[in-house]
Amino acid sequence: MIRFTTAGESHGRALVAILEGVPAGLALAAADIDAELTRRMQGYGRGGRMKIEADRVQILSGVRAGETIGAPIALLVENKDFANWSEVMAVEAGADPAKRRLTRPRPGHADLAGALKYDRRDARDVLERSSARETVARVAAGAVCRRLLAAFGVEIGSHVVALGGIEAALPATLPVPLDRAADASPVRCLDPVAEVEMVARIDAARKEGDTLGGVAEVVVRGLVVGLGSHIAWDRRLDGRLAAAWMSIPAVKAVEIGLGVQAAHLPGSEAHDEIARAAPGAARNAGGFARATNRAGGLEGGMTTGGPLVARVAMKPLSTLMRPLASVDLETGAAAKAQAERSDVTAVPAMGVIAEAMAALVLADAYAEKFGGDSLGEMRRNVGGYLAQLDERRGAWGVEP
Amino acid sequence: MIRFTTAGESHGRALVAILEGVPAGLALAAADIDAELTRRMQGYGRGGRMKIEADRVQILSGVRAGETIGAPIALLVENKDFANWSEVMAVEAGADPAKRRLTRPRPGHADLAGALKYDRRDARDVLERSSARETVARVAAGAVCRRLLAAFGVEIGSHVVALGGIEAALPATLPVPLDRAADASPVRCLDPVAEVEMVARIDAARKEGDTLGGVAEVVVRGLVVGLGSHIAWDRRLDGRLAAAWMSIPAVKAVEIGLGVQAAHLPGSEAHDEIARAAPGAARNAGGFARATNRAGGLEGGMTTGGPLVARVAMKPLSTLMRPLASVDLETGAAAKAQAERSDVTAVPAMGVIAEAMAALVLADAYAEKFGGDSLGEMRRNVGGYLAQLDERRGAWGVEP
Amino acid sequence: MIRFTTAGESHGRALVAILEGVPAGLALAAADIDAELTRRMQGYGRGGRMKIEADRVQILSGVRAGETIGAPIALLVENKDFANWSEVMAVEAGADPAKRRLTRPRPGHADLAGALKYDRRDARDVLERSSARETVARVAAGAVCRRLLAAFGVEIGSHVVALGGIEAALPATLPVPLDRAADASPVRCLDPVAEVEMVARIDAARKEGDTLGGVAEVVVRGLVVGLGSHIAWDRRLDGRLAAAWMSIPAVKAVEIGLGVQAAHLPGSEAHDEIARAAPGAARNAGGFARATNRAGGLEGGMTTGGPLVARVAMKPLSTLMRPLASVDLETGAAAKAQAERSDVTAVPAMGVIAEAMAALVLADAYAEKFGGDSLGEMRRNVGGYLAQLDERRGAWGVEP
Amino acid sequence: MIRFTTAGESHGRALVAILEGVPAGLALAAADIDAELTRRMQGYGRGGRMKIEADRVQILSGVRAGETIGAPIALLVENKDFANWSEVMAVEAGADPAKRRLTRPRPGHADLAGALKYDRRDARDVLERSSARETVARVAAGAVCRRLLAAFGVEIGSHVVALGGIEAALPATLPVPLDRAADASPVRCLDPVAEVEMVARIDAARKEGDTLGGVAEVVVRGLVVGLGSHIAWDRRLDGRLAAAWMSIPAVKAVEIGLGVQAAHLPGSEAHDEIARAAPGAARNAGGFARATNRAGGLEGGMTTGGPLVARVAMKPLSTLMRPLASVDLETGAAAKAQAERSDVTAVPAMGVIAEAMAALVLADAYAEKFGGDSLGEMRRNVGGYLAQLDERRGAWGVEP
Repeated sequence: MIRFTTAGESHGRALVAILEGVPAGLALAAADIDAELTRRMQGYGRGGRMKIEADRVQILSGVRAGETIGAPIALLVENKDFANWSEVMAVEAGADPAKRRLTRPRPGHADLAGALKYDRRDARDVLERSSARETVARVAAGAVCRRLLAAFGVEIGSHVVALGGIEAALPATLPVPLDRAADASPVRCLDPVAEVEMVARIDAARKEGDTLGGVAEVVVRGLVVGLGSHIAWDRRLDGRLAAAWMSIPAVKAVEIGLGVQAAHLPGSEAHDEIARAAPGAARNAGGFARATNRAGGLEGGMTTGGPLVARVAMKPLSTLMRPLASVDLETGAAAKAQAERSDVTAVPAMGVIAEAMAALVLADAYAEKFGGDSLGEMRRNVGGYLAQLDERRGAWGVEP
Repeated sequence: MIRFTTAGESHGRALVAILEGVPAGLALAAADIDAELTRRMQGYGRGGRMKIEADRVQILSGVRAGETIGAPIALLVENKDFANWSEVMAVEAGADPAKRRLTRPRPGHADLAGALKYDRRDARDVLERSSARETVARVAAGAVCRRLLAAFGVEIGSHVVALGGIEAALPATLPVPLDRAADASPVRCLDPVAEVEMVARIDAARKEGDTLGGVAEVVVRGLVVGLGSHIAWDRRLDGRLAAAWMSIPAVKAVEIGLGVQAAHLPGSEAHDEIARAAPGAARNAGGFARATNRAGGLEGGMTTGGPLVARVAMKPLSTLMRPLASVDLETGAAAKAQAERSDVTAVPAMGVIAEAMAALVLADAYAEKFGGDSLGEMRRNVGGYLAQLDERRGAWGVEP
Repeated sequence: MIRFTTAGESHGRALVAILEGVPAGLALAAADIDAELTRRMQGYGRGGRMKIEADRVQILSGVRAGETIGAPIALLVENKDFANWSEVMAVEAGADPAKRRLTRPRPGHADLAGALKYDRRDARDVLERSSARETVARVAAGAVCRRLLAAFGVEIGSHVVALGGIEAALPATLPVPLDRAADASPVRCLDPVAEVEMVARIDAARKEGDTLGGVAEVVVRGLVVGLGSHIAWDRRLDGRLAAAWMSIPAVKAVEIGLGVQAAHLPGSEAHDEIARAAPGAARNAGGFARATNRAGGLEGGMTTGGPLVARVAMKPLSTLMRPLASVDLETGAAAKAQAERSDVTAVPAMGVIAEAMAALVLADAYAEKFGGDSLGEMRRNVGGYLAQLDERRGAWGVEP
Repeated sequence: MIRFTTAGESHGRALVAILEGVPAGLALAAADIDAELTRRMQGYGRGGRMKIEADRVQILSGVRAGETIGAPIALLVENKDFANWSEVMAVEAGADPAKRRLTRPRPGHADLAGALKYDRRDARDVLERSSARETVARVAAGAVCRRLLAAFGVEIGSHVVALGGIEAALPATLPVPLDRAADASPVRCLDPVAEVEMVARIDAARKEGDTLGGVAEVVVRGLVVGLGSHIAWDRRLDGRLAAAWMSIPAVKAVEIGLGVQAAHLPGSEAHDEIARAAPGAARNAGGFARATNRAGGLEGGMTTGGPLVARVAMKPLSTLMRPLASVDLETGAAAKAQAERSDVTAVPAMGVIAEAMAALVLADAYAEKFGGDSLGEMRRNVGGYLAQLDERRGAWGVEP
């Protein structure tokens, strides 16, 4: 079992993640993680903070001489901005409680529900944790899982397919590797025409003090058939992935494969007919091939061996520079919602975060199916399974 | 913590659920559960089985003299059809293995991935469990949670908003109670015009040996503000609900509130401005009101106190009477997928199942926030929280 | 992950277990489970119920044609005595609430704490679930895990080492298989002299209306080195086993290896020196041997490859025929505790239950380390690990 | 739900804990945690490291202006000794792998099993995590839970009842607060005669290059009746506590109440008769009193409202200065086990660690029964339950 936990406030001292269950023997350097942290900071439409900070991870444990040792991996990313917030965010009692207090909750954010639930007078106690900055810790932990999956030939990428109402045309085939191709665009979009429009839309929104949402498509290639399971609702991989993606701040929809569109098609057009794979085809689908991938690589809550494809939709950010109507928690008086420094859009970054969440869930699915306390053991077990799949094909009298 | 587990094959002896953590003192009768099982069997477009079976639950434990006692509640629903399958599904060794064997997997179903993963020669070993009949056990367990939530004024309903490509017009306001209003329609649709078209579309699909998917909207009213939490990814209620819904067989998309649509709107049009509630307003939102509900009642992974609204989209069923192309697992030869008796569509039932999953997740969220081993204790704790919310309002100098 | 859940009251309709995560392809028959249920019913000192009932399992799901299919295994054991309790234990409202009511809680039992916690007027609502009859479901589920472990050469047994204050002399070497050898004794004791004394002590206690406790030693042979883990407190196998055993009703102590005795010895006498295994030695300890087994086969929360040895101590049963002082819950008046039909001692049975709990925990530990959705896959992965251990030895220039 | 995770190696950069689920509004300062860390470092018989290091916690998140905010609390304790180990323990590749390598595993330690399981050539990759230094993180997290429990009048202490074979005489009544009274002794023992002998035994063992184990008694006072539950094996508090304590490095036995001794007594002498509490008695036992506490405050897996009393037995440390026989992992040759700087005994510290584990489990049990996202809410819910208990007593016509 691979599991992870995060901690840390947006303007606190640091973000922290503990990732547990990664097999020993995986080569890992801070640079592997920093590369993902950098990807998360990119994207046209980010605010000032992204320019201040260059997130850098400190690996506090679980790695020695460049290799995982099987122990929990603790990752720490300092908030460089903390220097400016040390009084407001001080752990110690005594700081001026009125400073940077937030009592006019932002519609769409956790501010109001959180302040009521946790009975806080200052909604800053909520927003500091509910802030999307928390995803720094997820991306850091996900970067480790990404490395693990790469050892099994799994490649994870994403690209922006809609932003601010502008939908991108999809290329006939997705580039490999997808992550780098998307990163080359300021909005992580593969359609150069849409890209230009998206950038313009962002500029316009910034002027209007408004924010923008969008949709990222996540694509995972190279997964072996049979991850997840149909036998229990909470072992199904579709549910586990949906939970992981829907838990990203501001995400309001998750679609797998055709998603909503599948609901409108007849069965004769909504499934992926099964054929025999050509000799020499990738072994991970067990000798079967599909001309289409409407299921997005998941059938019965299990991977098919085809690419896992999903869309994750994010609403516009809740912090508007031209604030929405709210109520002051102290007085009950109508008031404009408080504004914090924020981005116009974070959709490009959200794709990177969705990749990280996919990596965390899928690495766990590998650990579940294959066990393995060392990379060598996991590799041997995966290899044995691939050979088992080959054998079945062999029984057809066909060369795998 | 309220948790549940299910077991049982589609044509096996019975479906079983164990539901654990329900407080003592809740009035409960088998009829409460049977009513939900009956709702699950309804819907135009179901196949022959629905006519054969009238599912009836046996409460095996956890209830005494008409009241829960705090112990695990075991629920058993016999498969009446088992009489016809007793040889094929026999637990004992010795039955003819060739009988009703499935070696030509259905595209879209768990058959292929499951047979490879679990290394089964007969994909029946997979489909019997991956079948949507498993949801009988979920609906039974969910019915108990529904009763628990009703004790707190929570009402759960759903209606079909699209089926086979036909989209329903939405009424200006949803009827109360929603479940009964929807159940009055053969396709559980509130739009009588669309209803007629949907029925016709089902008839047409049946003739063509095809199947249909669709979308149900789930609505939960009366929830208190602050269920779920922003503090950790796996405590967020949006993620937990998404997992629950996406784990329903054939579901490929989950949208909360505006869902995908929110991604295309500017922030100024995508959030729900906050106002002070009118005197005498429901206490569960803590004295705040929203003119809109674009967030679907969830902000920051927590309930807002407004209605929880989500859409769950289901692809068409994978068993077509005019089967799709497949491959014979034994020989590797191209073949038509095997056909089992099946429905043309199960979208109306899926809404009922989605209600059950919502009930299971939300009952757990109540247990998490309020604890309570008896209904009286839970009620007292909820009451104390409502008074706490009132008090805050009282501080405004406003009569709650 | 292998997990299980149980439900059922002592005099209710049935006990139920759902066991999830057992790989497909394991040969399994009801008789395999019944054999363990029979072992659980044995033991000198049991009351009348054991004579009435011969527990027989019904496998409701998860097994087909004599083999597991990977799906959850639901097991049901009817309470034959239910016929006599159908009114008292009726699920339906309306039965006479005064019948068989328990308001004078038994010291030592869950009655009092449970009635207060769950706010029940009738402590029967508590005792029916807290009764040790619940362990029928554990033994049934454990029997399946036992079969799984047997496929890997793991043998689980137990014997009574103390009963009613009489301590057994230990044989120089334990018989193989241990379970059968112990079962041959009416008190499951390997020391024939102590056995006679124990039987006499039981007879005496019965006359006095008293009850007796005792200690069982659990021994598991054939485990591979490296199950469990040192990396996190809740992955350590010692802790997981301690939880499983301490959760058996009336158990008050768990000792691993030398247990408490180890605390009184110097380090030079408390550990097991490491030597090289002789050529041809069992492969599961990785080429190492120990002349002693003071650690009980667990070091650092992991198996050493030597026998797992632990002692589980059970207090005397809480239901005395000559009852202890109590208080009537209704009136607050001093009163004698209520007596229910009960046994004089259940120590022999407790050993069987402790075996079952060990099987459940250890099967999960195998699933965790080796993954595997089919027995073949798990076997291949275990085999690969054994070869890995051999290889290390091979590097010494020694023939494994 | 309150849960925690730890990370960190013995000579790595730091130990880290993330504690999640603590309600908002709890006053908390680093000094509260440091006090427990200091207690953990005390004890006659510790080695040189304890003199080098004065562990100090950094609270990285979850606390603001001296109060918890409901968010995960990340705690970091630097290893001051890291300066001397920075090359050996470097995260980066490139360090000389031969330095401080451990290839001669210590009997009793995780070295051998861990090196085989995780397939490491250098057992340092194992011992660095399996080291008892990991418990720094547990004590830090436990200190927070201790503060939470203190808000409900719960007091946790421990004292050493045996060390190196010397057993302490028990005082007629335990001092209040127990922790401070025990801390006043260099071996945390309340018996001054035994204390002198223990110190002498430690001195002797040090000279002989040997190590010593012992037993600590943990006592928790002020718990409310009804924590934990009888309804499911893994909700029982006895099992959860046993897991927590048995997971402490070197612990080999856990006894609750009379423990093993209870197994040898007749039922008439092994239970705690129930009486009515005197007017004005503590409310947390619900109006009942016991003259004895043989059950150790746990019946049916639930608290009785009396003191929770358990004994935790620790074997002698596995690192001997006069090393035991071992085998070199590289060559297979017989060799003396490697020696690391170590303590003669850590029994006094183990008691403090056992207190911390108790605090973590019991705080979770409070969260489970009472819910509550703010301290005020949890307090209100506990208060309501106490009033419910009072009311029952009131029905007797007795003034509570």
